[in-house]
Amino acid sequence: MKKYIVQDSWNIVEEGFHRDFNEITESVMSLGNGRLGQRGNFEEKFTGKTLQGNYVAGVYYPDKTRVGWWKNGYPEYFAKVLNAANWIGIDIDIEYESLDLNHCDVRDFRRVLNMQEGYLERSFVAVLKSGREIQVNAKRFCSIVDDEAGAIRYAIKPLNFEAKITITPYINGDIRNRDANYDETFWDEVRKETGYGEAYIELRTRKTGFHVATGMCVEIEQDGVKVDYQSQPIKYEKYVANRITLDCRKGQETVVYKYAVNLSSLNYDSDTIIKDAHQYIQRITRKGYEKMLFEQKQAWADKWKTNDIIIEGDIAAQQGIRFNIFQLNQTYTGEDERLNIGPKGFTGEKYGGSTYWDTEAYCLPFYLATADQKVAKNLLVYRYKQLGKAIENAQKLGFRAGAALYPMVTMTGEECHNEWEITFEEIHRNGAIAYAIYDYVRYTGDEQYLVDYGLEVLIAISRFWSQRVNYSKAKDQYVMLGVTGPNEYENNVNNNWYTNYIAAWTLRYTTEAVAKVKAINPSAYADLIDRIHFREEKELATARQIMEKMYLPKDDAMGVFLQQEGFLDKDLMPVSDIPKGQRPINQNWSWDRILRSCFIKQADVLQGLYFFEDEFDTETLKRNFDFYEPMTVHESSLSPCVHSIQASKLGMKEKAYEMYLRTARLDLDDYNNDTEDGCHITSMAGTWLAVVKGFGGLRIETGKGTESRVILNPYCPDNWQSLSFKIRFRGVLLQVTTTQQDVTVHNFSGEPFTIQLLGKEVTIKAESHKTVSTKVMA
Amino acid sequence: MKKYIVQDSWNIVEEGFHRDFNEITESVMSLGNGRLGQRGNFEEKFTGKTLQGNYVAGVYYPDKTRVGWWKNGYPEYFAKVLNAANWIGIDIDIEYESLDLNHCDVRDFRRVLNMQEGYLERSFVAVLKSGREIQVNAKRFCSIVDDEAGAIRYAIKPLNFEAKITITPYINGDIRNRDANYDETFWDEVRKETGYGEAYIELRTRKTGFHVATGMCVEIEQDGVKVDYQSQPIKYEKYVANRITLDCRKGQETVVYKYAVNLSSLNYDSDTIIKDAHQYIQRITRKGYEKMLFEQKQAWADKWKTNDIIIEGDIAAQQGIRFNIFQLNQTYTGEDERLNIGPKGFTGEKYGGSTYWDTEAYCLPFYLATADQKVAKNLLVYRYKQLGKAIENAQKLGFRAGAALYPMVTMTGEECHNEWEITFEEIHRNGAIAYAIYDYVRYTGDEQYLVDYGLEVLIAISRFWSQRVNYSKAKDQYVMLGVTGPNEYENNVNNNWYTNYIAAWTLRYTTEAVAKVKAINPSAYADLIDRIHFREEKELATARQIMEKMYLPKDDAMGVFLQQEGFLDKDLMPVSDIPKGQRPINQNWSWDRILRSCFIKQADVLQGLYFFEDEFDTETLKRNFDFYEPMTVHESSLSPCVHSIQASKLGMKEKAYEMYLRTARLDLDDYNNDTEDGCHITSMAGTWLAVVKGFGGLRIETGKGTESRVILNPYCPDNWQSLSFKIRFRGVLLQVTTTQQDVTVHNFSGEPFTIQLLGKEVTIKAESHKTVSTKVMA
Repeated sequence: MKKYIVQDSWNIVEEGFHRDFNEITESVMSLGNGRLGQRGNFEEKFTGKTLQGNYVAGVYYPDKTRVGWWKNGYPEYFAKVLNAANWIGIDIDIEYESLDLNHCDVRDFRRVLNMQEGYLERSFVAVLKSGREIQVNAKRFCSIVDDEAGAIRYAIKPLNFEAKITITPYINGDIRNRDANYDETFWDEVRKETGYGEAYIELRTRKTGFHVATGMCVEIEQDGVKVDYQSQPIKYEKYVANRITLDCRKGQETVVYKYAVNLSSLNYDSDTIIKDAHQYIQRITRKGYEKMLFEQKQAWADKWKTNDIIIEGDIAAQQGIRFNIFQLNQTYTGEDERLNIGPKGFTGEKYGGSTYWDTEAYCLPFYLATADQKVAKNLLVYRYKQLGKAIENAQKLGFRAGAALYPMVTMTGEECHNEWEITFEEIHRNGAIAYAIYDYVRYTGDEQYLVDYGLEVLIAISRFWSQRVNYSKAKDQYVMLGVTGPNEYENNVNNNWYTNYIAAWTLRYTTEAVAKVKAINPSAYADLIDRIHFREEKELATARQIMEKMYLPKDDAMGVFLQQEGFLDKDLMPVSDIPKGQRPINQNWSWDRILRSCFIKQADVLQGLYFFEDEFDTETLKRNFDFYEPMTVHESSLSPCVHSIQASKLGMKEKAYEMYLRTARLDLDDYNNDTEDGCHITSMAGTWLAVVKGFGGLRIETGKGTESRVILNPYCPDNWQSLSFKIRFRGVLLQVTTTQQDVTVHNFSGEPFTIQLLGKEVTIKAESHKTVSTKVMA
Repeated sequence: MKKYIVQDSWNIVEEGFHRDFNEITESVMSLGNGRLGQRGNFEEKFTGKTLQGNYVAGVYYPDKTRVGWWKNGYPEYFAKVLNAANWIGIDIDIEYESLDLNHCDVRDFRRVLNMQEGYLERSFVAVLKSGREIQVNAKRFCSIVDDEAGAIRYAIKPLNFEAKITITPYINGDIRNRDANYDETFWDEVRKETGYGEAYIELRTRKTGFHVATGMCVEIEQDGVKVDYQSQPIKYEKYVANRITLDCRKGQETVVYKYAVNLSSLNYDSDTIIKDAHQYIQRITRKGYEKMLFEQKQAWADKWKTNDIIIEGDIAAQQGIRFNIFQLNQTYTGEDERLNIGPKGFTGEKYGGSTYWDTEAYCLPFYLATADQKVAKNLLVYRYKQLGKAIENAQKLGFRAGAALYPMVTMTGEECHNEWEITFEEIHRNGAIAYAIYDYVRYTGDEQYLVDYGLEVLIAISRFWSQRVNYSKAKDQYVMLGVTGPNEYENNVNNNWYTNYIAAWTLRYTTEAVAKVKAINPSAYADLIDRIHFREEKELATARQIMEKMYLPKDDAMGVFLQQEGFLDKDLMPVSDIPKGQRPINQNWSWDRILRSCFIKQADVLQGLYFFEDEFDTETLKRNFDFYEPMTVHESSLSPCVHSIQASKLGMKEKAYEMYLRTARLDLDDYNNDTEDGCHITSMAGTWLAVVKGFGGLRIETGKGTESRVILNPYCPDNWQSLSFKIRFRGVLLQVTTTQQDVTVHNFSGEPFTIQLLGKEVTIKAESHKTVSTKVMA
């Protein structure tokens, strides 16, 4: 846990240079626009602790899998997020001295990530070994308007000398992944070009053959006037630069504008990609830095208009939640249905792959409530497009007849993970993908989605469940053997309650979806079942049989569901009994000890009670919460949010707040000592859930047909003055503000809107608001 | 399955050169003497398919572990068997042509492993590209008398030409392991020396720092007369040789005698090891090839005198069983308590480590019955000496107070394996180590072993079990969660019957051993408990509690023990239901499918019923056999032998023979397509067990005190004329010969000896025999 980040409501601020924490700062100060991004690295040379990182969405490398002992079915390759060409570089040489903060005294250092306007700014005075002092101000952003481009304003001022200063803006493609299994190089050079103030390089990934063209154009001003500089082009292997030497007077500001683009063959023809880069560069250079920055601010203002959460009375919480929302928006914009939400976004390269069940279980509700409907839809279509691969994946494991198993980790639909207990057995992920379809349709009312995409996916997943269970004669029930549930501190267990439940639920929802699609569009349905050889009667009959006889372990005496069969044979004890110094247990205990202990990494039964809350009463939730929460160590960043939501629902405000705090500033405070690898992007969505579904009590109640109702039961945590959040629901934008006394709901739409607020039906007029006292209701 | 090895009762014969199978032939024709050994490689250059392999017992390299995902507790290093300097090499160049069987026509090729006398002989005529024909006869052995040496007689004869022939005997230490995780080099050169006809090289292993000095001396004869040749010494990096050029007439035989030694710093001071090698070489060179070979034959004759099994009427079976006995004797001689029985012996380098639970469970009974008592004792002392490491190993997993967990795979006592489900969970191995103590004491009557070594090990293992179980409130019994039983096709199961049983048994036997040692030597006992802080009363009370309340899953209706809790929830079906082409399942099914299937890799409940047969009646064995045998795929080479023994006991002769056949010629016929990696040494002991304990029905019944009785219930499999085996028991050598009609037992000792034969007490006079009809008994 570190506390050096300055608390500020809109900015992430580092005051003074924290050398040892630099990789952490680089992670949290990452920039991204959904298409490209980079860590908060320095532009100029830096030989100290740093993880240089530039990333291009959708461009990956199939790194050869590393295993201890091979098991049949393991994937041969693992899609790695690629560290790509560095386009931010600007080296500064003052005659014989290089500007390198690792080798000079640094004064007045300040690095700020401005989340309101979407840029990174850094200023400092460097005192060189010679005693020369130079002031630097660097500001850059990844444009969300021109989303294949970025721009940098890099200003230098000699404070106590005059000299010839050499400025070398460059693009360096000689990059290796820190996270590589066999230390291979992933990029080859294709071609490079330099021109006056310009330089381009085209690289190709090995094996996958992605082309990425990176280009730059440099403009320089002195005394506010554009300089007609002399530049010397430089080309090395995978490296292009322009070396520019200028006379700089004492006190004179020299400003370098560096425009950069990053085009990938996902979107451009690789034959002309350098030309396209050139045109793109020309366009943004003409537009100019100031206009680009202005557009950037506008675009971010638009986002915050529907996204922002305001917390009064707790600046750390305010900063934390905005940071989370900011990073989520930087990572995924929903513009491109081929992209998804990588676990580290553009903030690091660890883990690889881009898609986990986190997307469906945690991120989807965030985008549903804060972005245009198409954003959430694109997340679903992404999986639809990978259905063929999911069917292949299931075939590799011996399933047939169109059964689909979505991968645990993927980039292209192919499995990337290789631990048998996860890859082959953590199959509940398949259920989350079905659940996301349900969640999307419930929220948006877009039943056409079922016709166009959803039902096909549901049938394939249901086929998997039908084959994956087996009938136990001993129990006269269907059982599911050898699975790993959401709690990965249990492996290869039998009858994980959550997995069995979501499997049975999927079968039920698929049956309903069949009926719905048949009703909406009989001919589309006929086409579909013909195409996928769906034998309706037989397959639904099997599904019904399984649904009815699915074994769901429980203990009647305690009235709790059992995480898995045999759970009560464990030595049950609360987390508080773990001896001091032995937590987190995953860093202190051997794996077998963790497995046979009762301790839970991440909500499992409680995850199920969260997904399917309408099917269980509050007393059931309470009993299970009281049973499982004391045994949960929350060693996954995805865990506390679910417990927080459940605690809110149960009126356990202190517990809810404690759980909220566990993730709200996870990266800003480097809670788990791993932020240097990158930020925990998907768990940021969990924090948002804890606020909006937990404190805000947001629920969507499905009514008849596609009619759904927004339910709100908000409260303000004790130590906050107020909490305010916005949600979008089917064209309506609402703002919910809750203080210790009352709740105000604004309706920004042109129509009156009826919700259920604190248990009462409330209609809010168009472009108006209503305030209800919380005291009355209590 | 391959059938090219010629059937012969005493020899392993390859007629004609089987190029494509060469690595298989090299494996089966390996030579060894317990101290060093090598694969059946060619002396002269060979550029075809070959795995050059020379091995030195006890010399290993800690190869860096390779894992997919690190788990706490994994060992950082994995002790690899080291491929060491090649000392057999003799290159032959006929002017401009090299002798290389890959690039010439080969006539009259014959390679023979003579098991009776312990040497490898190879003869052929090579027709070179030039048309020149050369006849070669090569014969070599690894001496079991001078057990750090080997000798080669390499004779060449030009058949249709005369020429200057260059003979280059060499030692090459520039060797890499084929089985290396990161393709590292494991050896560094220390020094080398050459002299007239002599050459020495000293190499040191990286990290472990073992020194191995390899030396050679060359003598040459032409026309039966020693030649005073000119030699040119050659030294390259890690390579020494002498190049000798001789005029060879047509039809003249030139014989090269190459004497070699291999000394390791396990036994010699590394400062003087080259000098020691020089002296050793001088000694054996003086002794000479013929004398060495004569001594070799004598030594092997001595071994066969107590080891041999004679099968009449089935030459394939005869060859198979002798091959197994021969390889077991080549691998381990029991001379050195620091050594053990590697899974591949000196026949290959795969798997690494040298010791598995195979030693205790399968190999010990072989050495007990065929070798001097000290051999079996040394196998036990090996583990005693590693007790400290076993305690450390348990500590790493969170156990304390002197609890010991012996490693799954080891060289030095440290764990080498890194799959969590095996390394951390396949803990039944600990029970086998306790059982071996029991087995040894029962067989030898050597109760002093308990005083000197055994009890200390038993207490440490019992401490482990006491801590590893936990009390289940739900069951009011002790349970053992998260284990892998002998059947590795189940992972992380709860309450594996075998593991729970052997744990409870260990506690019981330890309690008995405490009483015994207290009685035999109270002061030694007092010293021991003081040294290891054994709190007798408390620890035995805990043990008693666990023994009494150990949960042993069973199904009363069927009257079978359950391999693990929940076994009956599986989709139970016989192996015969597995669709064609899907076996072995471990090459065709994904791991999760194997795990949730009912199919059993290796005897598990039946292994327990084998170890503890006195504690169960035959009906119980029958019910369990009938239940489990049809579900067993025997995809471990250690499985069929146990089933064979059980089938013999149940009178299921056909099944017993079928199971026997599964392993008897496993390597000779390359049954599993993996003999090229080396032979399955430990499962050879299993084959011996199937004969002696299965067909032979050998049992040892423990009587009062140390009195034990030999029980024999032999029968002759239907298609054999007779079966004859020998056993040593407490100074007595017996030979048991059974035909279809009768059984004859010879007593070669100087005292009368009483046994139970076919259910009847029989006393055989000194140096006499007795024959009993089997018909009468049936």
